Amino acid sequence: MAKSVLGRGTARARVLEAALAKFAEHGVSGTTLQMIADSIGVGKASVYYQFRSKEDIVAAAAQPMFDDMARVVTIAEAISDPDARREVTISGFLEFSVRHRRLSAVLARDPALESLVQSREDLTEIVDRFTNLLIGDGTRPEGRILISFVTHGIYGSVTDKALEDVSDEELHRTLLAVAQQLTRKAPHFE
Amino acid sequence: MAKSVLGRGTARARVLEAALAKFAEHGVSGTTLQMIADSIGVGKASVYYQFRSKEDIVAAAAQPMFDDMARVVTIAEAISDPDARREVTISGFLEFSVRHRRLSAVLARDPALESLVQSREDLTEIVDRFTNLLIGDGTRPEGRILISFVTHGIYGSVTDKALEDVSDEELHRTLLAVAQQLTRKAPHFE
Repeated sequence: MAKSVLGRGTARARVLEAALAKFAEHGVSGTTLQMIADSIGVGKASVYYQFRSKEDIVAAAAQPMFDDMARVVTIAEAISDPDARREVTISGFLEFSVRHRRLSAVLARDPALESLVQSREDLTEIVDRFTNLLIGDGTRPEGRILISFVTHGIYGSVTDKALEDVSDEELHRTLLAVAQQLTRKAPHFE
Repeated sequence: MAKSVLGRGTARARVLEAALAKFAEHGVSGTTLQMIADSIGVGKASVYYQFRSKEDIVAAAAQPMFDDMARVVTIAEAISDPDARREVTISGFLEFSVRHRRLSAVLARDPALESLVQSREDLTEIVDRFTNLLIGDGTRPEGRILISFVTHGIYGSVTDKALEDVSDEELHRTLLAVAQQLTRKAPHFE
């Protein structure tokens, strides 16, 4: 039994890896299950055995990123000081964005990720709680603009093709310094 | 003659306005010339009389933004000090991004704008010169990361639906302060 479970796990990982490579090349909408099957030299039925649909593949690929987001949300929600809470949320976001930068780059300009979140209540809830940690209810326009700037700045540079040659470590270190410079003791949130 | 030119100009502007509204609602790829014609109560032939294709409409809508970019490029290229040149380029980018924020929001997640730039040599040249002003040849990774962060931060917040209630003035003022805080006397460029 252990062997068949492992076998399935390995086959799934292989399909997932091949799918991400195809998504990166043709976008999610430009990729078919047949193209994924062809690229690893198996029949379409073998792909169907692992995933019911392309949406299912996107969901499986994105799950580790949402697990990380859920972890950041749990940690940050336990902090009572609003400034410390925001700082932890941003540094957590930066950490998992860099770690999943290849996936993020693939999905950044694709509506597939947004559709996935909208179709799944558990993901919508995590994203809402994450957003709430960043913005909350009483934040003035300046604070909301700053948060939008920082999160788009992080996401945009992490998925920037022009920065593909930069190492994860360098990207993380530089972005953390920049984000902290902007959000620590920021008068925008007072 | 003056009258017919004015007449054509007004009809063009009306089609353009209707097209942008439809693009905002359904995306560029989800909009047909028929939908645009229907929304202003004219036949499809009247739309065709003004624009040969949807791509032609996107090009006409985006032209003022590229004109502004060309102006920023001309001004910035005349400055010899690298730091001052970068600062003018960023503040110019911020200025025209806020001014064209409705158009930017419509086209932000659409491949139409990228296709347009790639299909037109004059636009490719302007975008390349603009990028070169920001990054140049000798910028270290830290500097490239910072520029990517700032430009994505500006573009992302200007096109952020959650900030639609914020006035252009407030958006411009806050983003300018943030961008200047990051790029003035930045050791990243040394």
